[in-house]
Amino acid sequence: MKKIDIALLGFGNVGRALAQLLLAKREVLREHYQIEWSIVGIATRRHGSVLNPTGVDLEAALSFAVADKEISSLAPNNADMDGVTFVRTSGADVLFENTSVNYQTGQPAIDHIEAALEMGMHAITANKGPVVHAFGRLAELAQAKGVRFLYESTVMDGAPIFSLWQEVLPVAKLHSFRGVLNSTTNLILTLMEAGKSFDQALAHAQATGITETDPSGDIMGWDAAVKVAALVTVLMGIPLTPDNIERKGIDDITLEAVSKARDAGLRWKLICQAWRDGEGVEACVRPEQIDPNDSLYNVMGTSSAVTFVSDVLGDLTITETNPGPQTTAYGLLADFIRVVR
Amino acid sequence: MKKIDIALLGFGNVGRALAQLLLAKREVLREHYQIEWSIVGIATRRHGSVLNPTGVDLEAALSFAVADKEISSLAPNNADMDGVTFVRTSGADVLFENTSVNYQTGQPAIDHIEAALEMGMHAITANKGPVVHAFGRLAELAQAKGVRFLYESTVMDGAPIFSLWQEVLPVAKLHSFRGVLNSTTNLILTLMEAGKSFDQALAHAQATGITETDPSGDIMGWDAAVKVAALVTVLMGIPLTPDNIERKGIDDITLEAVSKARDAGLRWKLICQAWRDGEGVEACVRPEQIDPNDSLYNVMGTSSAVTFVSDVLGDLTITETNPGPQTTAYGLLADFIRVVR
Repeated sequence: MKKIDIALLGFGNVGRALAQLLLAKREVLREHYQIEWSIVGIATRRHGSVLNPTGVDLEAALSFAVADKEISSLAPNNADMDGVTFVRTSGADVLFENTSVNYQTGQPAIDHIEAALEMGMHAITANKGPVVHAFGRLAELAQAKGVRFLYESTVMDGAPIFSLWQEVLPVAKLHSFRGVLNSTTNLILTLMEAGKSFDQALAHAQATGITETDPSGDIMGWDAAVKVAALVTVLMGIPLTPDNIERKGIDDITLEAVSKARDAGLRWKLICQAWRDGEGVEACVRPEQIDPNDSLYNVMGTSSAVTFVSDVLGDLTITETNPGPQTTAYGLLADFIRVVR
Repeated sequence: MKKIDIALLGFGNVGRALAQLLLAKREVLREHYQIEWSIVGIATRRHGSVLNPTGVDLEAALSFAVADKEISSLAPNNADMDGVTFVRTSGADVLFENTSVNYQTGQPAIDHIEAALEMGMHAITANKGPVVHAFGRLAELAQAKGVRFLYESTVMDGAPIFSLWQEVLPVAKLHSFRGVLNSTTNLILTLMEAGKSFDQALAHAQATGITETDPSGDIMGWDAAVKVAALVTVLMGIPLTPDNIERKGIDDITLEAVSKARDAGLRWKLICQAWRDGEGVEACVRPEQIDPNDSLYNVMGTSSAVTFVSDVLGDLTITETNPGPQTTAYGLLADFIRVVR
């Protein structure tokens, strides 16, 4: 039996869904993977932090968070501390970094992950920032320390994208990809096609919890561009930051434009693309009208999809239908099993 | 550097495409995977066999096969021999079993693979027969001998299906799947939608080489049923043979029925399905009319797709567009790298 101490940094929708999945799969992990986990620390944005080397009661922490109560009361002597201090003090074997993304700098998540790797912890994240702003550095640091830095859930939630290319598609060379990678904009466009105004559609997306309080990162195409940058950086081996991607959001797609497209049998989608160009790469994110024969035409609501073109497999498309925090949590759990095995 | 001796049993479209891919990726295998391969035997159906422990010239064998010449002349003392004797005499580390499928019994491929595993060789196949008719036995034998039995290319060519579930989706429980898994029938239905008669469409499919000389295995749904049986057996852990699957082919789909569906905005597809039912499983293969919102609607020509429903990922769809012998060959190569690593 492998006894693994876990620190959870970030305890929002994704962090809590991960906690629930860890609890739900506790027996399977024990029996089929010989993994016995224990939570030694939880740091939240609004409900304090808790550290306890002998184990934090995860079910209690979940109910405290849901009830909007401070989780620090779960253990004695929990002074407020910053993320890096939390990581360094935790004594964990594995850090889950699930704080909010910063598209421009990737901070403070990069510092958190760096601190974990420096301490010889595996680091797993659903946060795209560190992948696009510090991938090379963090991957090298992980290798030097003999641990792993994994990030499956940063693109298309828990659908296997990075692990697919890194583990089951050897010797393949990725030439290009094209997809719908942002849930909020795709849901808004789907609702507008059904006659809702942009504002009504956005309000609905926010009410379902898939959109941040400030939705501009989604609407303006930043989230999509960061995902494109992450895929290019990791899968094509070409470091690319979102500001180097031609980017146009859906903010000027009107209800009239959506109706007009629909009447012509077309659909607006925020299309993400990248393709090799000599030794470099070209990439863009922009709204396009696509026809029913397009493989992305049926990607509706919060679903996402990506078609990969490689030298050995022709076109391979991965589609994830109606994901949620639980699917993101699954990607984190899959990474966890990978690092422990 | 790992020096690996390979025996190729079956040298038709798939066997030859594998040979070409092995040659094309020779340098990459050497440099990135420290694998140095050598072909120690090739057995063909119509052009004889060759065995040479010091290495068979693969390029020469390919040109002999293409020129319809006996490959036995490539080495001295090559008596005609049956498949099992070929395997036992080869001295290979890895057997690629790519003989023609026998839907009803899985033979003689099962005997070939069994002989290889008994000798301590890894066995890799694109032949569905052994997977549906002897999976449990062959998997156990491989484990007992400390070698591997892999079969990625048996369903959806080289697209990662088995390896996806076995390597990158831990703790997931597959509830059901639904897909278009037979290229010949899908191409025929696509061509009929464009106005060709069944016979014209079939002739075209045969001319492109994707269909066997006797196309009845495809048309009557046997190939699809065998693929469903393979997925259920391996991914759901429930042994299932094709004769236990409710099966209806596309032989009575008329051009009139196809036109009528098209005029109604629908499309005929040969739909493959399986779902858990208590401790057991239900499965069927049958033509259905599907609408444009169906995720399988855009699977045209020789493309195939499957949607998996699991406890942790919602719906995950894998689509492979326009595969060919090279993609099947890639699945075999990916298995090869897995067994050698």
